[in-house]
Amino acid sequence: MRMPVPLPHAHRLLNHGPVTLVGTAHGGRRNVMAAAWVMPIDFEPPKFAAVIAADTLTRELLQASGECTLMAPTDAQLALTHTVGTQSGRAGDKFERHGLTATTGATVAAPLLDGCACWLECRRIPEPHVESAYDLFVLECTAAWADDTLWRDGAWQFVAQGPRTIHHLKGGLFFLTGEARQAPR
Amino acid sequence: MRMPVPLPHAHRLLNHGPVTLVGTAHGGRRNVMAAAWVMPIDFEPPKFAAVIAADTLTRELLQASGECTLMAPTDAQLALTHTVGTQSGRAGDKFERHGLTATTGATVAAPLLDGCACWLECRRIPEPHVESAYDLFVLECTAAWADDTLWRDGAWQFVAQGPRTIHHLKGGLFFLTGEARQAPR
Repeated sequence: MRMPVPLPHAHRLLNHGPVTLVGTAHGGRRNVMAAAWVMPIDFEPPKFAAVIAADTLTRELLQASGECTLMAPTDAQLALTHTVGTQSGRAGDKFERHGLTATTGATVAAPLLDGCACWLECRRIPEPHVESAYDLFVLECTAAWADDTLWRDGAWQFVAQGPRTIHHLKGGLFFLTGEARQAPR
Repeated sequence: MRMPVPLPHAHRLLNHGPVTLVGTAHGGRRNVMAAAWVMPIDFEPPKFAAVIAADTLTRELLQASGECTLMAPTDAQLALTHTVGTQSGRAGDKFERHGLTATTGATVAAPLLDGCACWLECRRIPEPHVESAYDLFVLECTAAWADDTLWRDGAWQFVAQGPRTIHHLKGGLFFLTGEARQAPR
């Protein structure tokens, strides 16, 4: 079940550097693509930085709507993540093509794809120079959600053999998020 | 052994989102701190974005020298990573305090800390607005290195029970980089 995550904890959802899916919608069109280059940049209000290439449908819909969702897929969505990271939404609606189900956000119209580990609803903070120079977008998180079987007490609670988030190395090669280790206090 | 990584592959060293160590040096002072908010933003020339808080010695030395190193520590350096992420270099040289050994880079004077999984030598691309507004620095990588027991054929080659990179969740709680999974081609 999708449970709300308090905004001061939202950065923790992506703090460990998983690959993300970026959801967008505008004017009757919608899209989802994979993005490895997404990270938190502030705690509260939570902000994220994301690289969104200039020629993508995601970029077009993000700039038109001023909104997107960021989601961390699980290893059950690994093949899908690679697929939506290599196909263009201009070739046809990826949701229909791959039988994906989604709901719209509470604070944005962009899609929350079913089956993810977490979902962040974001609005674009316009930064024309770095958008143009580096394809780098600054996003403020307006609502955050996590799968309540994977997130508890403000932290990921992955278990052996259970679903994990994933980290992209190159060309469809991913690493699962591995075992937890606590530094001595 | 430290082996050179061709610059077009440099982004892959941090593509999976591990926590990093940031090395800096200027005017006889040097420092190393932990930073989870570091990611690639371009392939070639390879560029990275890094959040470096305003009041840190690292920020002072980075701005004064225009250089830094980015390194991915292994799980053997997990406690050290937490320690250098919570102590200020203004309280004393962390290398002396913790018995750390390092060499200087090939293209920068900033330190390459022994024992890491990879090392990226970087120069700051001045971006005063996002530095000031978000503590966000744009860095161009001028040389890259990886431990040749962990990196081969342009990819991380972690093995069971061997050293891994680590990913920070919160408060000294890390995840190891887990098993590899290849998406169907």
